[in-house]
Amino acid sequence: METTNPICYHQHMTNSKLSTQPYKGARDFYPEDMRVENYIFDTWRKVCKLYGFEEYSFPILEPLEIFSAKTGEEIVNNQLFSFEDKGGRKLAIRPELTPGTVRMLAQKYNALPQPMKWFMIGSNWRYEKPQLGRGREFNQLEANIFGDKTEMADFEIFQLVISIMKAFGATEKMFEIKLSDRRLVSCLLTDVLKLKPEIIDKTRRMMDKRSKVSAENFALTLKDYGLDTKQIELIEIFLSGTLEELSKTIPQKLLEQNEGYQTIKRLFTLFKQNNMAQYLRFDPAVIRGFDYSDGLVYELFDKNPINKRSIFGGERFDKLIGIFGDFDLPATGFAMGDYTLYEFLKGWNLLPKLNQTDTYFVTLWPTDEDNKFLNASLEISQTLRNKGKEVFSWLTPNTKLEKQLRYADKKNYSCVIIIGQDELKNSTVTVKNLQSQKQETKSIESFIKELE
Amino acid sequence: METTNPICYHQHMTNSKLSTQPYKGARDFYPEDMRVENYIFDTWRKVCKLYGFEEYSFPILEPLEIFSAKTGEEIVNNQLFSFEDKGGRKLAIRPELTPGTVRMLAQKYNALPQPMKWFMIGSNWRYEKPQLGRGREFNQLEANIFGDKTEMADFEIFQLVISIMKAFGATEKMFEIKLSDRRLVSCLLTDVLKLKPEIIDKTRRMMDKRSKVSAENFALTLKDYGLDTKQIELIEIFLSGTLEELSKTIPQKLLEQNEGYQTIKRLFTLFKQNNMAQYLRFDPAVIRGFDYSDGLVYELFDKNPINKRSIFGGERFDKLIGIFGDFDLPATGFAMGDYTLYEFLKGWNLLPKLNQTDTYFVTLWPTDEDNKFLNASLEISQTLRNKGKEVFSWLTPNTKLEKQLRYADKKNYSCVIIIGQDELKNSTVTVKNLQSQKQETKSIESFIKELE
Repeated sequence: METTNPICYHQHMTNSKLSTQPYKGARDFYPEDMRVENYIFDTWRKVCKLYGFEEYSFPILEPLEIFSAKTGEEIVNNQLFSFEDKGGRKLAIRPELTPGTVRMLAQKYNALPQPMKWFMIGSNWRYEKPQLGRGREFNQLEANIFGDKTEMADFEIFQLVISIMKAFGATEKMFEIKLSDRRLVSCLLTDVLKLKPEIIDKTRRMMDKRSKVSAENFALTLKDYGLDTKQIELIEIFLSGTLEELSKTIPQKLLEQNEGYQTIKRLFTLFKQNNMAQYLRFDPAVIRGFDYSDGLVYELFDKNPINKRSIFGGERFDKLIGIFGDFDLPATGFAMGDYTLYEFLKGWNLLPKLNQTDTYFVTLWPTDEDNKFLNASLEISQTLRNKGKEVFSWLTPNTKLEKQLRYADKKNYSCVIIIGQDELKNSTVTVKNLQSQKQETKSIESFIKELE
Repeated sequence: METTNPICYHQHMTNSKLSTQPYKGARDFYPEDMRVENYIFDTWRKVCKLYGFEEYSFPILEPLEIFSAKTGEEIVNNQLFSFEDKGGRKLAIRPELTPGTVRMLAQKYNALPQPMKWFMIGSNWRYEKPQLGRGREFNQLEANIFGDKTEMADFEIFQLVISIMKAFGATEKMFEIKLSDRRLVSCLLTDVLKLKPEIIDKTRRMMDKRSKVSAENFALTLKDYGLDTKQIELIEIFLSGTLEELSKTIPQKLLEQNEGYQTIKRLFTLFKQNNMAQYLRFDPAVIRGFDYSDGLVYELFDKNPINKRSIFGGERFDKLIGIFGDFDLPATGFAMGDYTLYEFLKGWNLLPKLNQTDTYFVTLWPTDEDNKFLNASLEISQTLRNKGKEVFSWLTPNTKLEKQLRYADKKNYSCVIIIGQDELKNSTVTVKNLQSQKQETKSIESFIKELE
């Protein structure tokens, strides 16, 4: 950690004012933004709990090394916020939630009954160029099933993903999940093309980027790695084929022995039996960028014609826990980001109006002696709160009633309660519905009774 | 930001396994811990909303200078996690939520109708020695009223604080709010003792620490600052007096002109009129450590005889926004930490049992052909979820029923649903209540009907 001289900053202070902007690429959530963010979080949480997933959490600072191990070189070398603490420990602000999750499971491996179905909502940081649907800071839902090596765990993850998307109002017209399996890629590169081990990882990473580069540049890079024209052609055929067309590049016999191939076939049988096939499609071009992916991989794509892109993805990562010791804990799951989801929802006009509903605004009579009006307003406010109602009490003394009503209008409360001279004398309240603009004076007693 | 060599880490990886512990002083929340934390967050959120407060949020990374300005030298010089990003910007992980809150208000000062009643729940980091009720990482509720310079805003903050404590089950026997006003301290040091400006701040900070040092060391330090014995004696009398005894150190005439004194008198009138006086007490020894406190200050104390300590505090900070420009925005509020609150609740046995309630566990028959049992289990699970029920489906194939039931028992689900041979044939389900251990077989139709 750097030492900084506070006096230097203090001098700076007296000369000029500080910026009111948040750190570049990070977001302030004003109340209206927060309502949207909470709508996303609440929906995530609700659906995960419907599937029996349990919530957990861990610190945003982690030892640097848990990311160096398996997260992938682009994030670790270029995008990590990392530093040393005063004790010389190398720390990183987490760029993703998976390694910390696995760390927690390793810590209590023997005490936790398997399978674990866990979810978490937390923020991550990556030092990258801010752009639409992407910032340096973003929140993610991470949901995984641990302790089940069968494709049933993957199947339930797909159920969960589809249920979450439906809970936001999305339909099969709007999104599609493309899936493949890393073991198919491995089979192609190792058993068919017989590439050397040191070339396999970078070839796979290049294949992951195929859609972002031209055919020419793709071929040039692979040539650079030592692949010949025939090999590059086979890779292109592999990437663009269907499940049936896989045998064009991988001999049928190898396919039949391939666990990835068998997994995908069994999954599609389940999808058909459970009315999910319309959401899912095999696509060998889905590869994913994490080094820890070691089986099924998938990405959810926006079908919006003006913005056809990957919203989030997931994978098998059975061996990641190995960085913490000799554990056997199969793992599968996904991480869904708030940034891209928000753009998806906006693009399909799925963001609901999140106005204040069933909220009360209690005025304060502008001229008051001995706190008579004040105490009456406070009392009705507390009575409403005791009934579970949300109440904004105007408390600033000597404020014109019009000003108070203008404020209530602007803030969109559903109901205004006025206690004036007559109301105080007669133990009544005047209740104004701001939607209908209807106003009525009634006894406090009957007003309270009507609430129930 | 430091550059790190991933290859070096990779080598480390192959030699030894990584630690499964979280970063020192920071917490992992396993599902059972998370239920407690969510109980705290949910209670905070619920009560703040009852008072019409709106939720907001901002990034955990802030430009370093917004803390250097006013947060207080101990935190800034010794406890800040700070570093430079790749662009050379000096950043800090926030140690508290107030400066960032004020930054947001300054940013949209002209667009936001006043008063604003805002709350936020977020995590902070301070590099300090981990101890009971204190870690390097902690979550806080920050709640403030902006735009009301009268003591009515402070009054409502006290209402809110007391309502939150009551929502957790706390009574007047368990906690007490001690309050004072910085303007009384200023009057004593400036007008009575006539100290030089450069001595006032450090004398005030020493007074804040009075309860943590001996009388001897307190006197020695103040002597070092240049105070004489008579002055030190007056400070001791001031710190230990009641509201009535203030005139022993500050002449009555000065007191009558003092806005702090008048504020406190008016507040206690309101407390008495609104049945709150039993929770509040004037205590001139309450001073607070932030440099931005500039009026009313208060701390909530645990009355537990084995652990009488401050749980959290709050203050007026009308001038803090001045670091961002020429704004006029009176401000008052508090920040309540999860760590100390948790210790308080544990100490008074106020933590509720947070078991799973109304949760279902659906078994999977161990021998299955063509996914018949599987699809039946999946269907009943989805039906329950569509009714809003939380359902854990056992999906791992070929698992003995006893093992599944043992798991359900351990995880404390309220109800187990079994579909075996007979159930599949007859379209029934066997429903076992894990609390009562009662078991019943009924038609799926009537089971679903009973749920409603």
